[in-house]
Amino acid sequence: MNDVSSASKPTVGVVGLGSMGLGIGLSLLKEGRATYGFDLDQQRTEQFQVAGGRVDTLSSVVGKLDIIVLVVVNAEQVKSILFGASGIAVDMKLGALIIACPTMDATDAEEIEARLNEIGLLYLDAPISGGSIKANEGALTVMASGADEAFAAAEPFLSACAERVFNLGNRAGPGSAMKMVNQHLAGVHIAVAAEAIVFGIAQGIPAQKALEVISSCAGTSWMFENRVPHIVAGDYSPHSAVNIFVKDLGIVTSAANALGVKTDLAQAALQRFNSAKQSGLGQEDDAAVVKTFATDAGITLPGES
Amino acid sequence: MNDVSSASKPTVGVVGLGSMGLGIGLSLLKEGRATYGFDLDQQRTEQFQVAGGRVDTLSSVVGKLDIIVLVVVNAEQVKSILFGASGIAVDMKLGALIIACPTMDATDAEEIEARLNEIGLLYLDAPISGGSIKANEGALTVMASGADEAFAAAEPFLSACAERVFNLGNRAGPGSAMKMVNQHLAGVHIAVAAEAIVFGIAQGIPAQKALEVISSCAGTSWMFENRVPHIVAGDYSPHSAVNIFVKDLGIVTSAANALGVKTDLAQAALQRFNSAKQSGLGQEDDAAVVKTFATDAGITLPGES
Repeated sequence: MNDVSSASKPTVGVVGLGSMGLGIGLSLLKEGRATYGFDLDQQRTEQFQVAGGRVDTLSSVVGKLDIIVLVVVNAEQVKSILFGASGIAVDMKLGALIIACPTMDATDAEEIEARLNEIGLLYLDAPISGGSIKANEGALTVMASGADEAFAAAEPFLSACAERVFNLGNRAGPGSAMKMVNQHLAGVHIAVAAEAIVFGIAQGIPAQKALEVISSCAGTSWMFENRVPHIVAGDYSPHSAVNIFVKDLGIVTSAANALGVKTDLAQAALQRFNSAKQSGLGQEDDAAVVKTFATDAGITLPGES
Repeated sequence: MNDVSSASKPTVGVVGLGSMGLGIGLSLLKEGRATYGFDLDQQRTEQFQVAGGRVDTLSSVVGKLDIIVLVVVNAEQVKSILFGASGIAVDMKLGALIIACPTMDATDAEEIEARLNEIGLLYLDAPISGGSIKANEGALTVMASGADEAFAAAEPFLSACAERVFNLGNRAGPGSAMKMVNQHLAGVHIAVAAEAIVFGIAQGIPAQKALEVISSCAGTSWMFENRVPHIVAGDYSPHSAVNIFVKDLGIVTSAANALGVKTDLAQAALQRFNSAKQSGLGQEDDAAVVKTFATDAGITLPGES
């Protein structure tokens, strides 16, 4: 009877209450799921608690959790939380589910799945796309792969948090692989949007005019239309930070190198994000990569005096 | 009386009946404009004549033309036709209009305008976007700039051939500058689409699956959605050829260099299109740039055995 009750009313833990993790936690609460939130940042856990979330130490409640959603930075953090010195994997209920959302190399996802399966735990390779606004709305896109049992167990998470779920296969790996392809394109599109906007300004085309014209031409991209408005407004408060693409394009180029795939364009974009980070822009919105092009060209951007 | 009649029923000449020029010529015919077509290729002029177009030698009818639309390859060809050894500019009617459609450096557009104005002719800097299908439908996007008189005189061309006209200023230059920004983005987007598709295939993601997923994610672009289907189909019959982006990214990077703007991403994309051209793919669809990435990575593309 206990099993049936826990299957129909699973208890969920969300590890990492940053802009994405908090949105995921709140979406689960909206669906009436019993949800614990964990973060080292006291302010974030309080924000989650005020919204009705449960707060405790991970080590003391881990045995009660049916699902743990890891919304942390990278594969290293996932491995450390699960298998590190005070790793929680060994303390989880048999058959419990771990869902990992960070962008990571597919080989890391495969390794994590193998280690969890070995000790009787399920794993869903579930990178997310959509940004913090979609996370708050429970409208993320999830590029998921994993065993059928993992998908079934993940239903409470997917129905609360995702607008669209791509099932990319019955093992971990393809979800992460597809997310890397997405970040590869997204990162290059942001960098070239910045490069082209500066090229336009150097020729006397205001960023606002380029945005207006290019958005209805063959040169447009999702990122061009989403990020150039930040440049036009001169507002670099972070929706997604420069540091995210330093990290994600690093994962992409490193995975591609290991596979023998040349990624000249991703490398060029990564160099720009690295250069932005080195200029102290790491915490700014990723559109701030435009400042590196503008500085090199001696161009004044909108909002600069 | 002659003037009024020629203003209300202008005679138009289209120089260059390639895939874009032929579409422009046919669109003018559909609107009932008296239109001459000129091309060195006999088959194309015959195709135009069969559709009701007038055919003659340019030198013998140039004095009758109110508008000449140049749909040739680059600024050098425009200058040669207008000002070369047998250049036509001196033989045109006073006040006649030249419309130039090729992608070119804005400084070339400025120079051509100045030389034409000097001898009493009008000039519209009018690069086009949309491809051969839109050209046939009279539904091009025109990034135009020029004197008010040039815009007014161009009305028969614009109304017959364009779905959307951006008026970018009252002198030649800004039209070409905006077109370069568009080609800058478009060329990089095609190259990175190819790079990312090969990265996906190397990880076991079929091109068709990447197309399906990425098209609804933040990594998408107009070019990704338009060109990846060619890769999925293994069909590289040219809609727009590799050679076009060798040319256009060459113009972009050279103009950017002259302005002191660094274009690492455009340079990386140009190298890929150059490499495709050197492999004998210059006349294939620009999506064939994917073959350079696939060869380097030892990957088999859809449609290859």
